[in-house]
Amino acid sequence: MLSFAGNQMSGNTRERILNEGLALLSKAGLGGITLGVLAEQVGMSKSGLFAHFKSKDEVQIGLLEHTLKVGEREIIAPAMLAPEGLPRLKALMKQWLGWSKRAGLPGGCPIAAAMFELDDVEGPVRDWTRNQEKKWRGFLGGLVEAAIARNHFRKDLDAEQFVWEMAGIYLAHHVAYRFAKSPDADQRARTAFEALVARARPAGARRETRLL
Amino acid sequence: MLSFAGNQMSGNTRERILNEGLALLSKAGLGGITLGVLAEQVGMSKSGLFAHFKSKDEVQIGLLEHTLKVGEREIIAPAMLAPEGLPRLKALMKQWLGWSKRAGLPGGCPIAAAMFELDDVEGPVRDWTRNQEKKWRGFLGGLVEAAIARNHFRKDLDAEQFVWEMAGIYLAHHVAYRFAKSPDADQRARTAFEALVARARPAGARRETRLL
Repeated sequence: MLSFAGNQMSGNTRERILNEGLALLSKAGLGGITLGVLAEQVGMSKSGLFAHFKSKDEVQIGLLEHTLKVGEREIIAPAMLAPEGLPRLKALMKQWLGWSKRAGLPGGCPIAAAMFELDDVEGPVRDWTRNQEKKWRGFLGGLVEAAIARNHFRKDLDAEQFVWEMAGIYLAHHVAYRFAKSPDADQRARTAFEALVARARPAGARRETRLL
Repeated sequence: MLSFAGNQMSGNTRERILNEGLALLSKAGLGGITLGVLAEQVGMSKSGLFAHFKSKDEVQIGLLEHTLKVGEREIIAPAMLAPEGLPRLKALMKQWLGWSKRAGLPGGCPIAAAMFELDDVEGPVRDWTRNQEKKWRGFLGGLVEAAIARNHFRKDLDAEQFVWEMAGIYLAHHVAYRFAKSPDADQRARTAFEALVARARPAGARRETRLL
C-alpha cells in the first residue's frame, strides 16, 4: 500500500518522518496528525512530505504500521525467547503492558487510542486498524492454543475469551498507568492476569501459577 | 465552575448546546469539539455560544459534566432499584455496558474516549476527568463494599482490585462492541464478569453465581 523510496537518502528521510510522527501520534492521537503538523514537526515543507505520503490517511496508516514494527521489536521479539506455552504467554503479557514507555515514546499506545478515536468513524484508517487488531487477537489466540496443546491450560479453555480478557487487562492498565498515573497499575494488572491464568489451568495445577 | 444562565430562554439554549454537543462529543471525541464546530452544529454564532461558555476548556468540561448527568440517569438510577449488595452491583455492570447507545448517543462513551485522548495532555479538562474517574471508582468500590458487608462477597476481598477489573471488562467491551462491532461483545463481557464475581464469592457460595 505504501511506496518505499528507492534510494538511501529518501529511505532515511522516510524513517525520520515515521519516528517523529510516531512520537507525535503517541501524544496527540490520530486527530493530532495532519500533513501540516507533521511537516512542521519534521522540519520539512508540506510538499516535501507529500513526496512520501499522498494523503492524511496514508500518513496515519504509515504511522500505525510503524507502531506495529516498534511493537514487534518491543513486545513480540523478547517474548518469543521464552519457552512455548504458558511461559511465552506470560512473557508476552509482561512485554505488552507499558511497552510504549520502554520503546521511548513520549505518550501512550497509539493502537489503543485509535480504537477509541476511530470507533465511530468510517474509512481506510479504521478498516486498516480493525484488520490489524483482528490479526493481533489471532496471534495472542495462537499463544493460548499453544499453552493448551502443552497441557499448561485445560483442553476446554475458550482461547478467544482468554484473549478478550487479556485485552481488558491491557486497557485497564493503560488507563491506570498513563491517565490516572496510579502507582499500583502494574501490580493490579499482574493480579488480574494471574487470576485469568489460574482459571485456565487444568484441575490440580492451579497452585503452580507463578508471578509474571 | 460553569455559570448557568438566569432565565428560562437561556436555560433552554444551554440545554440544546449540551445535547447537540454531547452527540458530537460521543462521535468525534474532545478533539472534535471547538467553539467553532459546536456553534455550527447548534446553528448559532460563535459569539452567541460564547455567552454560555467562555473557552474551549469550559465547553469540554461542560459536555463531560453533561455526560455524567446522562450516565447517572441511564446507569446509576436503574441499578439503584436492585437490592443492595451483589444484585445492585450486577445491575450496575449490566447498565454500564453499552449505555451510550441506550442513551441515544450516536457514538461511544465520551469518558472512556477522553481517558485515552487526554492521557498525555495536561490541563483543566484532564484534571476534571481524572477527578471524576476517581469518584466513579469510589462509587463502584462502595457497591463492592456493600456486597462484602452482606456476605455476598468474602471479607478479605480487595474491592479496589475488583473495580479495576470491572473497568477492564467495560473497556474491552467498548472496543469489541463499538470498534470491532463484534456480535459476541455482550456475551464475552458477561462471562468475564461472572468469573470476576465467582472469585469474589465466599467459599461454598461459588456455584450460586447467576447470570447478569
